[in-house]
Amino acid sequence: MSNLALIIGSKNYSSWSLRPWLALKQAGVEFQEICIPLDTPTTHTEILHYSPTGKVPVLQDGDLTIWESLAICEYIAERYAPQLWPQDTPSRAVARAVSCEMHSGFAELRRNMPMNCCARLPGTGRTLKVQANIERISNLWRNCRQTYGQEGVFLFGSFSIADAMFAPVISRFVTYDVVLDDCCQEYIRTLWSLPAMQEWLYEAQAECKTPKSL
Amino acid sequence: MSNLALIIGSKNYSSWSLRPWLALKQAGVEFQEICIPLDTPTTHTEILHYSPTGKVPVLQDGDLTIWESLAICEYIAERYAPQLWPQDTPSRAVARAVSCEMHSGFAELRRNMPMNCCARLPGTGRTLKVQANIERISNLWRNCRQTYGQEGVFLFGSFSIADAMFAPVISRFVTYDVVLDDCCQEYIRTLWSLPAMQEWLYEAQAECKTPKSL
Repeated sequence: MSNLALIIGSKNYSSWSLRPWLALKQAGVEFQEICIPLDTPTTHTEILHYSPTGKVPVLQDGDLTIWESLAICEYIAERYAPQLWPQDTPSRAVARAVSCEMHSGFAELRRNMPMNCCARLPGTGRTLKVQANIERISNLWRNCRQTYGQEGVFLFGSFSIADAMFAPVISRFVTYDVVLDDCCQEYIRTLWSLPAMQEWLYEAQAECKTPKSL
Repeated sequence: MSNLALIIGSKNYSSWSLRPWLALKQAGVEFQEICIPLDTPTTHTEILHYSPTGKVPVLQDGDLTIWESLAICEYIAERYAPQLWPQDTPSRAVARAVSCEMHSGFAELRRNMPMNCCARLPGTGRTLKVQANIERISNLWRNCRQTYGQEGVFLFGSFSIADAMFAPVISRFVTYDVVLDDCCQEYIRTLWSLPAMQEWLYEAQAECKTPKSL
């Protein structure tokens, strides 16, 4: 049995949780999942029990606690699944740049189009600044797939942390009906139809049908 | 001669640029520096010449272009200076968590206490949310130094990327006169008095004395 436990928030809303969860699933690394429903009176206390920042996701590996979605993915790659980064140094450097850009950026998109897997809200949240974020993301996807991804359907050929970092954006683009060019739409379909992604979405839907308190 | 070129913004203001610049200097890696003054009519065009995001910093290593401060630091560590991360896996994982937390977080602090190396603005910008950011940062510094940094004056013993990530915060705390407990003050003094940090500050002062256009 694995010593790994990933503490995540509600699957319908917790975009940061989706990233390491998907990376672990895609890498075939076994882990225990502890899901803390967000927005309940005890959420903050429950998360603080695991996390020094009071935020999810958090990974526990025995005594070791690692927070921050990207740092968790780096640790998984380093310790359990090196295939989660491209194997050649230049591609890996660019994959990290892309992952970091998502990690600290696109604030307008995140603010105006929050992840909400179950909802369909076409047209909502499309400010000019959000549109600029969408254009940068689609340029980035196209450029990665054309330059580094030629041997596969992902950003850097096979599935990498860069894809995990953008998985919540895929969900947002489905929810808010953001339609892009063929190259980007193919990428959206690829990530959306991953069995692991479908599992997350199925469980997000189950959350939506469950009353918050019994 | 090194093939490395780091494109940065004005030293007085560009907090993101300081991070990889300091990491390169501390690691003793030679590089060419290209400084683009911020807030001029041609700034955006000049940066776009080097950067796909229109932002600094950017590292060029021959044909390879890497953007995002943390991704640049990761590349420097991987390719030229492995000593920039702690050598044991658990410490390195926590150092990455700390670096990622700084990379995507503390938005209130960054918004209300922008880096301005030359200025002294005691008391400015101290909202309640900024105060919460400051408390988290000081807890984090104290915890790292007490748990991982016992053999040295930095967060994880010897100088690491985690210190580089927090260097702009040190400058902010000096500018806005944020005074913390002894453990944190010692850390602030350590980073502030690094020869490389003093070199950056000296050049920031030179910028402040130079008229914007001749």
